[in-house]
Amino acid sequence: MERRVRDSFAAQDYMTTIGAELVSVRPGAVEIRLAVRAGLLQQHRFVHAGVVSAIADSAAGYAALSLLDEGRDVLTAEFKINLLAPAQGEQLVARSRVIRSGSRLSVCASDVFAVTEGKETCVATLLGTIAHK
Amino acid sequence: MERRVRDSFAAQDYMTTIGAELVSVRPGAVEIRLAVRAGLLQQHRFVHAGVVSAIADSAAGYAALSLLDEGRDVLTAEFKINLLAPAQGEQLVARSRVIRSGSRLSVCASDVFAVTEGKETCVATLLGTIAHK
Amino acid sequence: MERRVRDSFAAQDYMTTIGAELVSVRPGAVEIRLAVRAGLLQQHRFVHAGVVSAIADSAAGYAALSLLDEGRDVLTAEFKINLLAPAQGEQLVARSRVIRSGSRLSVCASDVFAVTEGKETCVATLLGTIAHK
Amino acid sequence: MERRVRDSFAAQDYMTTIGAELVSVRPGAVEIRLAVRAGLLQQHRFVHAGVVSAIADSAAGYAALSLLDEGRDVLTAEFKINLLAPAQGEQLVARSRVIRSGSRLSVCASDVFAVTEGKETCVATLLGTIAHK
Repeated sequence: MERRVRDSFAAQDYMTTIGAELVSVRPGAVEIRLAVRAGLLQQHRFVHAGVVSAIADSAAGYAALSLLDEGRDVLTAEFKINLLAPAQGEQLVARSRVIRSGSRLSVCASDVFAVTEGKETCVATLLGTIAHK
Repeated sequence: MERRVRDSFAAQDYMTTIGAELVSVRPGAVEIRLAVRAGLLQQHRFVHAGVVSAIADSAAGYAALSLLDEGRDVLTAEFKINLLAPAQGEQLVARSRVIRSGSRLSVCASDVFAVTEGKETCVATLLGTIAHK
Repeated sequence: MERRVRDSFAAQDYMTTIGAELVSVRPGAVEIRLAVRAGLLQQHRFVHAGVVSAIADSAAGYAALSLLDEGRDVLTAEFKINLLAPAQGEQLVARSRVIRSGSRLSVCASDVFAVTEGKETCVATLLGTIAHK
Repeated sequence: MERRVRDSFAAQDYMTTIGAELVSVRPGAVEIRLAVRAGLLQQHRFVHAGVVSAIADSAAGYAALSLLDEGRDVLTAEFKINLLAPAQGEQLVARSRVIRSGSRLSVCASDVFAVTEGKETCVATLLGTIAHK
């Protein structure tokens, strides 16, 4: 299971572009980490909502995938994200969980934390629907 | 008004990282364009949902900003995006509109289209809330 | 097609409870109307967000159903609604449209208008995902 | 604090109409309970998504209010709800929590459970933004 998730993550060029790393994969729970750097910022020097969304969404999708049978795949149907605080710090960490894994859809949530000197602040929370293929 | 939006957009390093361009700014309506390229893709070779979200969200935020007085700024409070079709083609175009511009919040929508040989397909639609500062 | 939608609507006890009426059904577009009355209000004497959501969601679901083959049915997977203005007036009208009708999911939008002396004000907008059965 | 929430809840005619009861109010967490009955159902004999949304939204709003100073009030700006399972059983219970209480906005979540013979099943989860007045 972890191999499938890791192979799929490695095939996401965009995760490489932004420097995101897949930290851990457990059944129904995935962690993605990202070093904050200049090329990812918006006009207030916080990490762009699109980057925050990208790691939150990827973590949600892989949490869903981690509970599916071999040979299945996932595609995000939709998500909603609330941005709770400026995404600034040394790193961002996205942690996801599966709320419901159905036959055709999974509902997943992710929280994104900004990390500075080991201290975590929740900067965003996502609730999304992942379609199974 | 257009200058303020263009200055803010130019200060978004992340828009430069992904190669997004601000095409047009009218009161309450902004268009952002992006050339599709390898570094922006996910595992199925479609543009990553995070990139689609990024241009949709930026277009929404700048549409809100375009209706505010000089000196005000905007910050996305939350958005929801439905991914309607694979984001593949030569370019993506995000077009936004302001649904309601209140004193403290704007509600905006964006549609993202994939463009191939001049033909547009709607690949995502966003509905979000932008806080004023 | 219209008969199927009307039969299903008539089987929704809750629509009767709140006094909602199915005004029109066209392929991919449904209109539901509701007379504002005391039992539907919240603490500021506006129509409760739950009632506004109910007619917006029902209109979205029936718009999706109107495009499906005989024998199919629909179930709301999720929706997001922005409340734009106080829901007050003589009547509320929800109008929906199908944004994408896929094989297993439809994406639909609804707008809800408050009507006073023939004048309409948009009080809410919904974007949702409808699962097909 | 609890009195303010209870007074406001009592002023919501619609909560009376559907038979919802405010079970408990703690700082940042509210529980609302509803007896399932015929007038609240949709065409499959499950509780209508609008009713599920109503108690989830009310619980979220009052959780936000419970953390504000005397004299402040709340208004839902938007919410997103995922319907996870058919809302059927003897009762529905909505439990909310405040994710972030800011100066002008609160972000809250609610879960709705269907209860049958003391056994709870999560049937919906809501993530929303509450504006302060």
